Amino acid sequence: MSSKPIIGITTGDPAGIGPEVVVKAATNRRVARSCHPVVLGSYRILFSAARKFLKKATVRRIVWPEDARTSRDGINVLDCSGFDQGRIKTGRITKLSGRMAADSVFCALQLALSDQIDAVVTAPLSKKGLHLAGYDFPGHTELLAYLTATSSYAMMFISKRYRVVLVTTHLPLADVARNISKKMILDKLTVTQTALQRYFGVKRPKIGVCALNPHCGEEGVLGSEEKKIIIPAIMTARRKGIKALGPFSSDTIFSPAVSDSFDCILAMYHDQGLIPLKMRGLGEAVNATMGLPIIRTSPDFGTALDIAGKGKADPKGMTNAILLAAQMARRIKKR
Amino acid sequence: MSSKPIIGITTGDPAGIGPEVVVKAATNRRVARSCHPVVLGSYRILFSAARKFLKKATVRRIVWPEDARTSRDGINVLDCSGFDQGRIKTGRITKLSGRMAADSVFCALQLALSDQIDAVVTAPLSKKGLHLAGYDFPGHTELLAYLTATSSYAMMFISKRYRVVLVTTHLPLADVARNISKKMILDKLTVTQTALQRYFGVKRPKIGVCALNPHCGEEGVLGSEEKKIIIPAIMTARRKGIKALGPFSSDTIFSPAVSDSFDCILAMYHDQGLIPLKMRGLGEAVNATMGLPIIRTSPDFGTALDIAGKGKADPKGMTNAILLAAQMARRIKKR
Repeated sequence: MSSKPIIGITTGDPAGIGPEVVVKAATNRRVARSCHPVVLGSYRILFSAARKFLKKATVRRIVWPEDARTSRDGINVLDCSGFDQGRIKTGRITKLSGRMAADSVFCALQLALSDQIDAVVTAPLSKKGLHLAGYDFPGHTELLAYLTATSSYAMMFISKRYRVVLVTTHLPLADVARNISKKMILDKLTVTQTALQRYFGVKRPKIGVCALNPHCGEEGVLGSEEKKIIIPAIMTARRKGIKALGPFSSDTIFSPAVSDSFDCILAMYHDQGLIPLKMRGLGEAVNATMGLPIIRTSPDFGTALDIAGKGKADPKGMTNAILLAAQMARRIKKR
Repeated sequence: MSSKPIIGITTGDPAGIGPEVVVKAATNRRVARSCHPVVLGSYRILFSAARKFLKKATVRRIVWPEDARTSRDGINVLDCSGFDQGRIKTGRITKLSGRMAADSVFCALQLALSDQIDAVVTAPLSKKGLHLAGYDFPGHTELLAYLTATSSYAMMFISKRYRVVLVTTHLPLADVARNISKKMILDKLTVTQTALQRYFGVKRPKIGVCALNPHCGEEGVLGSEEKKIIIPAIMTARRKGIKALGPFSSDTIFSPAVSDSFDCILAMYHDQGLIPLKMRGLGEAVNATMGLPIIRTSPDFGTALDIAGKGKADPKGMTNAILLAAQMARRIKKR
């Protein structure tokens, strides 16, 4: 029997592009070669998505993730939805669609924690949907961290060229400076080093650290966070055996001549890390949560309600997320 | 006699890489084909730089910029320095080096305002040098704006792929949000539109405007500057006939699929605009000041004291700056 990893894939919010990108990505050839995908969600919704968006595909209902190993091709669905899915309207986030999105995540987490699946890949859900369903989390990352009682975790974004970890994530720009701290940077560096060793096989990772201010603060004239926070954090990290380098002004570090010498770049805020990452192709980057007791990746796009149900959604990011999860899972098994 | 534009090139701070990149760029073949370069600075310093950094080159002392038209090849120097240059030490910014850098700029400005040269290209100077010499300006841009009494001007950065104009320039990140205003954005949009029409031949420029906050502020959850400042500025600009579009989240707008539809992108702060610009190659981008009564460009690197005098400085940015200045000057002459 195949030893390929079993990857659980959530459907995300069924009102968005989740079902479409999931059925498209689950039938991708490279995905089939690298793992056994198991889609977690509503059989009925996934069946109709497959009929609508694929030329041909078998959709099979399975009970145990292991059943996926005996499947030749087609889509394996583990139904974790007990609701009347007829009431889901494409393009409209509701309490029900939010509830279904959350249930799919709960199911995935449980299967992963009980080692029935090797990794979780999440399709996009809506913060609004989560909220309507009674879960007040900004997104998957925080929800999964909460459910697994993880306090030290990090969002890592992965593209062909870069691995980027964010120190602060979804904050107004005006609040970024006062929200970074030495402890926070040290924490992210620690999680990043462990993740690079564990999941990416980098024995002694080199992590490049971005400055917060232009020209690295220019000796304090353009900001003092480098001197007061970032440099002390790097120094402490180095004493703890983390090969952190910097800070580098952020308009320098992402130039390939510089970035290629690092295994990962630590960015201080959202756009600092994501501008360079998304420049090489929108929707292709993968977001992976580091520090959780499970492997979790996701594409770096949202529910895209404006194009939901139209067959226009590009599954590339989803495919990349599944391939990365499979690769991380294989790396762990080898150890 | 040749009708090619005459481009005045300052030497920058003679303690930095200025003299080296200037003599290298002034003897570049593409430069010679597109314009008549006239180097403004100390004959003695430029002569020794040419001997040190070039295989062979004639250095000719001229009195009027027009004299450059009759020169076959080699470097034409218009000496504008009356100091004892023997006291300049490579790698050491002093009051004297700062004074020489400033004098070279004053000379260039005067020649440009009296139409003896068609454009000015400035080599890097040091803020510290300027300060020691008694001129308290952060850089060329502000100095030239002051000397020409220009209140509405903008820094435009130009690379192969992008034209980017900055709303705020050298500010700590913590101060950015409170420093952008509707008036400021409107002002930069106006200067940008005029410059694109005048110097780049774009009849009806489309300008893409960046958001300040991640995800465009996500309906106010991640910041309110989009709603309160940026969108009103765009609306007013459009009423005035400026084709401003946006705001776009800054991790989207620089993706080629999006940016290619704009003639220029307006970024809210330094790193937002310069991360994408410098990613494709450090030191190749050109900085042009828009809104001045003269054409002024410069390479986008500093005095690089650490490599000054070592022959390692790459003149590419300087060459690009001269070529762009020549192109802008030709565009004006045609009108």
